[in-house]
Amino acid sequence: MRYTSAAIEALIDAFAKLPGVGRKTARRLAMHVLQQPRLEAERLASALLDAKDLVVRCSICQNVTDRDADPCRICTGQGRDQSVICVVESPVDVLAFEKTAHYKGLYHVLHGVISPLDGIGPDDINIRELLQRLQPEEGGEVREIVLALNPTVEGETTSLYLSRLIAPLGIMVTKIARGIPVGAELEFIDEATLSRAMEGRTTF
Amino acid sequence: MRYTSAAIEALIDAFAKLPGVGRKTARRLAMHVLQQPRLEAERLASALLDAKDLVVRCSICQNVTDRDADPCRICTGQGRDQSVICVVESPVDVLAFEKTAHYKGLYHVLHGVISPLDGIGPDDINIRELLQRLQPEEGGEVREIVLALNPTVEGETTSLYLSRLIAPLGIMVTKIARGIPVGAELEFIDEATLSRAMEGRTTF
Repeated sequence: MRYTSAAIEALIDAFAKLPGVGRKTARRLAMHVLQQPRLEAERLASALLDAKDLVVRCSICQNVTDRDADPCRICTGQGRDQSVICVVESPVDVLAFEKTAHYKGLYHVLHGVISPLDGIGPDDINIRELLQRLQPEEGGEVREIVLALNPTVEGETTSLYLSRLIAPLGIMVTKIARGIPVGAELEFIDEATLSRAMEGRTTF
Repeated sequence: MRYTSAAIEALIDAFAKLPGVGRKTARRLAMHVLQQPRLEAERLASALLDAKDLVVRCSICQNVTDRDADPCRICTGQGRDQSVICVVESPVDVLAFEKTAHYKGLYHVLHGVISPLDGIGPDDINIRELLQRLQPEEGGEVREIVLALNPTVEGETTSLYLSRLIAPLGIMVTKIARGIPVGAELEFIDEATLSRAMEGRTTF
């Protein structure tokens, strides 16, 4: 059974295409929009188009940034350690590290990981741009590359690939520690993580 | 900590204003929009504005309908019993009844219920429009009003108010049955519902 309005149906269909939004949620969102002032709908509509029109990738780190702020605020930031680059898979990972307010180096966003099964090879993600940043003529002051990809098979594969490419350049390659999360109980940690935590033990 | 793009922040803020969408979900939706082709964002943006611009209330039943389909498809539908009007609180309730494909009469959408605590009186919902439909000169063929408001205090109050207004017009006023839902187990039904079910028992 369909709504009595084609415009509402179209809105429900459009909402239902978003990830994690089913028909029922889409219907509730559509009814909410109908009840709100037009200004609210306009705000969301223009934010959608602005995000597509104004957001570009930073020419240095490939993270998302505004068209009029390229290079991005992190790449041009004062007090950033220009000699360390943390390599991540996607922009949300940059946000996660920035929230810690602990890491002070730069980033490089690959926008994906090597995944042969999905047809994604080294040339499909921003590896070339990373190597470009490591060339001596580009300032050449990079001392360390921190690999911070997700602990999946594809992430590990990409880390291995990158380390083999970068090590010959005489730059230190590290990866973030795998171990038990803060606040977790040993009893409920999976075997793989426990093994990694044991392997990676440090002096007290 | 904020994203490196003001446009993305604006989109996250706009998404987060939707009901049931928190910051994390809004962030995921925004990243999804960034990865989709521009056409998808355009489709949602224009659906939002169309819903505000093209959707009006049916001049008869007050349900939502397209500007170019007023009176709505139900009010003008063939094979609809013009002598029964089901009074509901909101457009989603019409949809719920239409999904049953069982009820064949007309509807009247109040767009709210009387709720003195929220400052909503009888004049703030579409009661006047309902009474207008019951006037003899308006065709005057309405035989029965079915009250199908939600079983809340406000819904019951509104039902009582309507029944007192309409009964003097010589029109039958009924309300939908309260009882145990199909498929429920008696053991887990609350006392109020069980009492209503017992009161409303019918011959087998």
